[in-house]
Amino acid sequence: MRIRGAGAIGAMAGYAMAMAAMEAPDSGYIEFLLHARKDIEATRPTARNLFYAVEEVFLAGLSSRPEALNTARLLADKDAADSRQIGETGSTLIQDGFHIETHCNAGWLAFVDYGTALSPVYLAHEQGKNIFVYADETRPRNQGARLTAWELNQAGIPHTIIPDNAGAWLMSKGKIDMMIVGADRIASNGDVANKIGTLEKAIAAHEYHVPFYVAAPTSTFDIHCENGDQIPIEERSGDEVLYMDGMTETGKPERVLVCSPGSSAYNPAFDVTPAKFITGIITEKGLIGANKESISKLHIPTR
Amino acid sequence: MRIRGAGAIGAMAGYAMAMAAMEAPDSGYIEFLLHARKDIEATRPTARNLFYAVEEVFLAGLSSRPEALNTARLLADKDAADSRQIGETGSTLIQDGFHIETHCNAGWLAFVDYGTALSPVYLAHEQGKNIFVYADETRPRNQGARLTAWELNQAGIPHTIIPDNAGAWLMSKGKIDMMIVGADRIASNGDVANKIGTLEKAIAAHEYHVPFYVAAPTSTFDIHCENGDQIPIEERSGDEVLYMDGMTETGKPERVLVCSPGSSAYNPAFDVTPAKFITGIITEKGLIGANKESISKLHIPTR
Repeated sequence: MRIRGAGAIGAMAGYAMAMAAMEAPDSGYIEFLLHARKDIEATRPTARNLFYAVEEVFLAGLSSRPEALNTARLLADKDAADSRQIGETGSTLIQDGFHIETHCNAGWLAFVDYGTALSPVYLAHEQGKNIFVYADETRPRNQGARLTAWELNQAGIPHTIIPDNAGAWLMSKGKIDMMIVGADRIASNGDVANKIGTLEKAIAAHEYHVPFYVAAPTSTFDIHCENGDQIPIEERSGDEVLYMDGMTETGKPERVLVCSPGSSAYNPAFDVTPAKFITGIITEKGLIGANKESISKLHIPTR
Repeated sequence: MRIRGAGAIGAMAGYAMAMAAMEAPDSGYIEFLLHARKDIEATRPTARNLFYAVEEVFLAGLSSRPEALNTARLLADKDAADSRQIGETGSTLIQDGFHIETHCNAGWLAFVDYGTALSPVYLAHEQGKNIFVYADETRPRNQGARLTAWELNQAGIPHTIIPDNAGAWLMSKGKIDMMIVGADRIASNGDVANKIGTLEKAIAAHEYHVPFYVAAPTSTFDIHCENGDQIPIEERSGDEVLYMDGMTETGKPERVLVCSPGSSAYNPAFDVTPAKFITGIITEKGLIGANKESISKLHIPTR
């Protein structure tokens, strides 16, 4: 978990695969690459970008070691360019005065450059639009409260952190104009796997007619997954719920138990949001509908 | 916040009012009571049971001091009897093998006896039914993770804590058979104010056809509120979101910052769930529909 965020995971996985090619012995070269691929893929089962990057660099590595490294570099560069393009497209959806809710962190801490969900927010801010962001704290790891809030603070974008529980309430009061989230994997029918809690927000947004956008590069699409049921969902240790890492008054990092001792916790890391709740998907190739037909027009390579 | 939970708040408010009657001087007796009533009512604006108990004891106090104390005692006793009756009625809705989700804490830590939302759970367990409880951690104050989990642990009822974000996901996977929550105030049309996040769960439960029950004594109904828009919602300090109290490895209580420093947090303590999302309300007078007609048949005193 030292590297997190769909784009960063993909870029790093690509470099990890390239490193394996560098380190692989001449005899048993392919076996070494196959083994490394399996090891890297086992780290984060839900993240599509990881599998995409590993596969691309693996195939390049079959040609030569420099080819593997070059492919990893190209993928990371493409991630940055994609992020910028997602921002350009997404920012046209943001009107002056908008209040935007976001879940988890899909900003530049999660990607190589601008990020996905936050990229339109940064661009809109650069364009001089007055915007306000509600950042879901995103339990259990608080990526919204820690990373998104920190990024927005650095960028000088007005925002506040809200408990995940407050989303629907704000929507019901007309306080949210749009919601943008990232994605860890998108099935060919438009179902989206993303950080746990995304589904709840999407259902609430649908109920209150709040436009709900997913921002993701086409490398996040997995056209081998017919629908969300086929996306594996990573389950993580219950300790992430039972304990919280924080900073004491004196600035000391400390881990504290925040639950009743003796109880367990169940901690699925992602959920799947059915396409019917998604207003649109913002990709580097433009805004598309969350449906099979629109996604097929992206002509995503089948391998 | 040292006393929390709708029932316990009501019972304590009644005793606080009775204490005011005991302490009131003979001259200026009524003024003293009026002043005390205002002070007590200002503590928790959303909790209906508080206003109900304070009013009852205030009116009794107009007759005599012993009458005030006696009324406070009767109200606390009635709260215990109501809890038990809610359990009896609610337990008939729980089938053997049920997985039940609950939000916040409405067990015996929140009421004088069995509680409301958890009372049917305790009774079903006593009846020998195999049940399993998913306790929402209930950010920001973690009443589910701390209090509900602790109560269930004491009672030996199988359970696990889940992040609030996981509710809809479990429902979508068919893992929740029913949801029961408490209430802080119920309007005459059946709209329910309860802990923040209740609305999100109710919308998700509606989407996935999970029966969603509210358990509350009739003292929680406020027939002067025509609908949920008229229920005042307490907003609490953002520090409850930014910081968390917990226990270090060495057993020391410690407060830690769990958000990015420099960002604010918005912290509404309750939300309002529209009646249309509520399958039924379990009261001490039986199970009723969340609608004006059913509630009017409860013949709740207008004062």
